[in-house]
Amino acid sequence: MIRRDFLKKSALASLGLTALGLPILQANPFFANLPKVNRQRIVDRIAELAKFGQDERGHGFRVAFTPGDVEGRKWMMGLMEKASLNPRIDAGGNIIGRREGKNPALKPIGFGSHIDMVPDGGNYDGTLGSLAALEVIEILNEKKLVTEHPLEVIIFANEEGGLIGSKAMVGKLSPEGLKQISQSGLVMAEGIRTIGGNPEDIRSAERKKGDLHAWLELHIEQGGILDAEGLQIGVVEGIVGILDVEVIVEGFSNHAGTTPMKLRKDAMLAASKLTVAVNEIVTAMPGNQVGTVGKVEAHPGAYNVIPGKVILGLEIRDLSFDKIEQILAAIESEAQSIAKETQTSIAFHREPSFNLPALTDASLKQKINAAAMALGLQTKHMQSGAGHDSQQMALIAPVGMIFVPSVGGISHSFNEFTKAEDMENGANVLLHTVLALDQE
Amino acid sequence: MIRRDFLKKSALASLGLTALGLPILQANPFFANLPKVNRQRIVDRIAELAKFGQDERGHGFRVAFTPGDVEGRKWMMGLMEKASLNPRIDAGGNIIGRREGKNPALKPIGFGSHIDMVPDGGNYDGTLGSLAALEVIEILNEKKLVTEHPLEVIIFANEEGGLIGSKAMVGKLSPEGLKQISQSGLVMAEGIRTIGGNPEDIRSAERKKGDLHAWLELHIEQGGILDAEGLQIGVVEGIVGILDVEVIVEGFSNHAGTTPMKLRKDAMLAASKLTVAVNEIVTAMPGNQVGTVGKVEAHPGAYNVIPGKVILGLEIRDLSFDKIEQILAAIESEAQSIAKETQTSIAFHREPSFNLPALTDASLKQKINAAAMALGLQTKHMQSGAGHDSQQMALIAPVGMIFVPSVGGISHSFNEFTKAEDMENGANVLLHTVLALDQE
Repeated sequence: MIRRDFLKKSALASLGLTALGLPILQANPFFANLPKVNRQRIVDRIAELAKFGQDERGHGFRVAFTPGDVEGRKWMMGLMEKASLNPRIDAGGNIIGRREGKNPALKPIGFGSHIDMVPDGGNYDGTLGSLAALEVIEILNEKKLVTEHPLEVIIFANEEGGLIGSKAMVGKLSPEGLKQISQSGLVMAEGIRTIGGNPEDIRSAERKKGDLHAWLELHIEQGGILDAEGLQIGVVEGIVGILDVEVIVEGFSNHAGTTPMKLRKDAMLAASKLTVAVNEIVTAMPGNQVGTVGKVEAHPGAYNVIPGKVILGLEIRDLSFDKIEQILAAIESEAQSIAKETQTSIAFHREPSFNLPALTDASLKQKINAAAMALGLQTKHMQSGAGHDSQQMALIAPVGMIFVPSVGGISHSFNEFTKAEDMENGANVLLHTVLALDQE
Repeated sequence: MIRRDFLKKSALASLGLTALGLPILQANPFFANLPKVNRQRIVDRIAELAKFGQDERGHGFRVAFTPGDVEGRKWMMGLMEKASLNPRIDAGGNIIGRREGKNPALKPIGFGSHIDMVPDGGNYDGTLGSLAALEVIEILNEKKLVTEHPLEVIIFANEEGGLIGSKAMVGKLSPEGLKQISQSGLVMAEGIRTIGGNPEDIRSAERKKGDLHAWLELHIEQGGILDAEGLQIGVVEGIVGILDVEVIVEGFSNHAGTTPMKLRKDAMLAASKLTVAVNEIVTAMPGNQVGTVGKVEAHPGAYNVIPGKVILGLEIRDLSFDKIEQILAAIESEAQSIAKETQTSIAFHREPSFNLPALTDASLKQKINAAAMALGLQTKHMQSGAGHDSQQMALIAPVGMIFVPSVGGISHSFNEFTKAEDMENGANVLLHTVLALDQE
């Protein structure tokens, strides 16, 4: 974490903050004369990147390790080369570019995102943060501004397939993880090799805690809160923890015609009551937690048979894992009553791949907020309901995340859209936060 | 229908009935000296028939038109041949045996069932009624008793695949029906040909209204009511109508992490509320109606996506189709509230293949009841929640159905079981009802 005790009062004031970290409601001289990004360049590059791997509908297809991803990465590295970032690929397949600073004793400030996508995904998720990071470098190049700290632009590999590149960077990509099948159909290790990584030497991708001065990521919100509230910048407070639970409801399969209602052990009825209860429990508590039943299978699954077994997929997310546990406990308790009432049994099996919540750094949140305010933008402190590489980076560095609005909250869809103005705002906040950080 | 006004009071009295059809609580002289069936012969033949088409687990496999069905039918016809029934196969594939009566002016009394089975089915469904029908003939042969009426034993083709043989017999098997794929994988027409029928001349299988004096079917209950209540004979009041409805719930698919609870249009939540409502509406009304949600599909069906579309399979059964319509109307009305509350839309699409209810004949119910009482058996008037060939036969003849207990209510399963004593009781009631009918 950033050692705030080393910060001078004058530095705080220059960021528009009091010693208590409260924003000063007046023009902040530090931000007044900073350079601005080139909006059109970002817009054009978003469109250019969207062309790789295009299918017959004209939709880009850059699922990690597929030809579209390989070509998109090559294009990205070409731009980074032109920007004098000397990009390299680490053992995990991450693209890392570096711009040296004035002071070789300082740790680098890292920023970036990812350019791979989900199948049928959109053109802004990850790409905005990646191209904005490049834009920050190009503006500094154009303005011939050299920071005190070295700067690193990192484009993570296979974010959408389980934060694979960032896991490799923080030492959390296990030998089992390398054996999983990726969405491309390739085994993870083979996929990493396809994009120039080296799965045999995966440990060499690791960065130690303290290797980076800080990590910043600009990303589209992927939710509809900023859009609905008409705000420009989300200051991310943390990335939620995620617990997936397979719920198995067992009753007794029987003839839907000959079994009287009162003699039934209907697993579908029990599963439905539980799904309603999940919604009630999650919405009854104050806070931003979410709970979803996204999967359901009824067996045998015919009009004329009372289902004897139903399997539900339950997911709970919150910034506090304790709260996730509280919610699950409340659901399990309600499930006992439902099981009794419906003469079924209900069992909960946690999926092994849960994500712990990751909190962002308090000082970085303040800098992001101050940068946004100085640009005349309205901010909201909010959680990220989606997972991001930044949650892995939080294990080794102070992390900050900047959100910009997604129109209608649509994401992971070809209809995902963020306005040019919002992209420009986000990139300027990123640039100015990097420069503010460089003052430390 | 049987014209009750032609019945003499003495005939009624001989059946243990008053002129109002109320049972007389005293020994009935007509039934006192009637012959009884041979229990062991039924038990042995059930076991013998169960061997056809046996798989590696030792389970019989006589799905219509498969080798096990073809061989089982050959065995059945052999026994009918030995019993002097001169069996023939009609154009629909039904096996029909005939025993002449004393009076050529009288219409035949028909009885029987089917010997095909569902995949993974049991050894009693259909086979008991078929072998008991043969047993009735054999006992009459042994006792050298010749009835006034001719008797017909009918073994229907492909009952489990949609009452195919009985539909052919009542003129309801359409050219489209002959083109459907049967559970054997064969097109229906080809399957009918495989068992000796003649799909090109399917109309020749038709029997006209009034061709039969009456139709009787003994069957296992396939439900758990007689077993749970410790009763021996079910006097079937009718075969329920069946309406299948596909329910399509549409919301909006969105990220399960970034979409706040209050901004969701969760099709799974709406579908679950509807499933609970179906159960509440069906159980709140007095009567024996049943309502089941047996099918469910959620799209896209992932832990991390709020389902945007859910398809449910809803089935409603009752002896009154008006009541089925009332129930559906109540469900549709409730669905409107749920759709509003959850910001989804809910649409109902009736499947074209609904079954109208079929009521059994009042006079036949009385005869069955009287026969059972004279044998010292306890009866219950009940509906059939399952479909049977008798519901087709009700279109052309007065129909009676006799149920015997299924242990635990299990059916369409290898674990289906009916005790030897209960099979004997049912076969005796069938025999005595035939003899009582013959008095008319």
